[in-house]
Amino acid sequence: MNATRNIKLVIHYDGTNYHGWARQPEQDTIQGLLQAAFEKLTGKPIEVIGSSRTDSGVHALGQVAHVKLTDCPVPTENFQNALNNLLPNDIVIAKLCEMPDSFDAISDTIEKTYTYSICTDPIRPVLLPQCWHRVGTLDLEKMQRAAERLIGKKDFKSFASAADQRLSTVRTITACNVNASPTWVYITVQSDGFLYNMVRNIVGTLVEVGRGRWEPEYIEEILAAKDRNAAGPIAPASGLCLMEIFY
Amino acid sequence: MNATRNIKLVIHYDGTNYHGWARQPEQDTIQGLLQAAFEKLTGKPIEVIGSSRTDSGVHALGQVAHVKLTDCPVPTENFQNALNNLLPNDIVIAKLCEMPDSFDAISDTIEKTYTYSICTDPIRPVLLPQCWHRVGTLDLEKMQRAAERLIGKKDFKSFASAADQRLSTVRTITACNVNASPTWVYITVQSDGFLYNMVRNIVGTLVEVGRGRWEPEYIEEILAAKDRNAAGPIAPASGLCLMEIFY
Repeated sequence: MNATRNIKLVIHYDGTNYHGWARQPEQDTIQGLLQAAFEKLTGKPIEVIGSSRTDSGVHALGQVAHVKLTDCPVPTENFQNALNNLLPNDIVIAKLCEMPDSFDAISDTIEKTYTYSICTDPIRPVLLPQCWHRVGTLDLEKMQRAAERLIGKKDFKSFASAADQRLSTVRTITACNVNASPTWVYITVQSDGFLYNMVRNIVGTLVEVGRGRWEPEYIEEILAAKDRNAAGPIAPASGLCLMEIFY
Repeated sequence: MNATRNIKLVIHYDGTNYHGWARQPEQDTIQGLLQAAFEKLTGKPIEVIGSSRTDSGVHALGQVAHVKLTDCPVPTENFQNALNNLLPNDIVIAKLCEMPDSFDAISDTIEKTYTYSICTDPIRPVLLPQCWHRVGTLDLEKMQRAAERLIGKKDFKSFASAADQRLSTVRTITACNVNASPTWVYITVQSDGFLYNMVRNIVGTLVEVGRGRWEPEYIEEILAAKDRNAAGPIAPASGLCLMEIFY
């Protein structure tokens, strides 16, 4: 028990009431609350390294993090329940296990999947508020055709918020699908990496196609422009959920 | 527009953050917020008469209320959107229409349906917290057999909280069903009237059957006892949802 353990966490949360993943002084954040729970349990400050720095209001059913524990007497099998009892109702550790020392939640990531939920019912869904409540018909067939044009290794600069500082804006989208039930639309995007606000900008653009402003083929022009102003408006954070991270 | 209008409302809400339906000074309640929205819109204090005084933490997807409007210049068709813009995200008016002057949301009620949701997954459902998170296997077949023994015109005194002051504890349950998906159990109860905490006491009792403490036949003994102590413990408010009121 005196060696260093490398612990992997899979975390679910409703992001509605949080200022995103990353710890900030004076603000409730997911990382901040997880670190506080670890500190309460172990008596030491511990950094919880998350794979995705989800934004304020964004949800997760598959965030992954790693934590290095040194000289901690608590057995690994006791951590999950103990931490979940310390966490608020809208954050839960769904899985906790020991990993080889080399495992890194950020750099070992191969792909991630996000799902974006839109409720199109005129009545806002009070029991399922983790969505974009957007009343009005969407042409799902056109949205799906537009989504397929995003698949592949491409420069997604037009879908990155201007605040994105990364040098390369080339990413590979391996899946982009539009699914629907009578009053809900779900957009799933899987990629080897996401630029800042990329999924929300893709969703905002697909909705412009769905409401008839653009034809699906217009996606090619947006990609070619390499200009954020060419794409649609950003979709609200409340509809976005990080679903799975692949290692 | 100068006559008195009798307006019927169908209301949905997530009760998690509210001290129940009934207005209370210094507390956020559903009735209190609806009345504040009406007052803001019409400039006058207005009483919103709800069919069910749901408890603190209880939800609704079919609460019904009536409102008498006198000398109000706002056309009926404008009320729903205007009120919904004034209400918080977790309360919504799903339907609003004019009714004959005689319509009364309380006394015209013929039957009501409640559904109670139990999540049995070991991981608490962060995006669907409107439930009783109760980990452990339940024998659904036995619960269904117990539920069927509650159907009919019976004295439900054993399922009424001691605080209930009503003279007669005889009610008629017309339906009582247990449905399940892999990690959820839904208990639906329909009756011509409910005693105080009756659904939550029924659910707590059916769970005792489901976990093996009692056989389904024991329901007969509980009913015969006419004593709250004979039934199971009360289930938490968070799982209860008023689904429909029949007129």
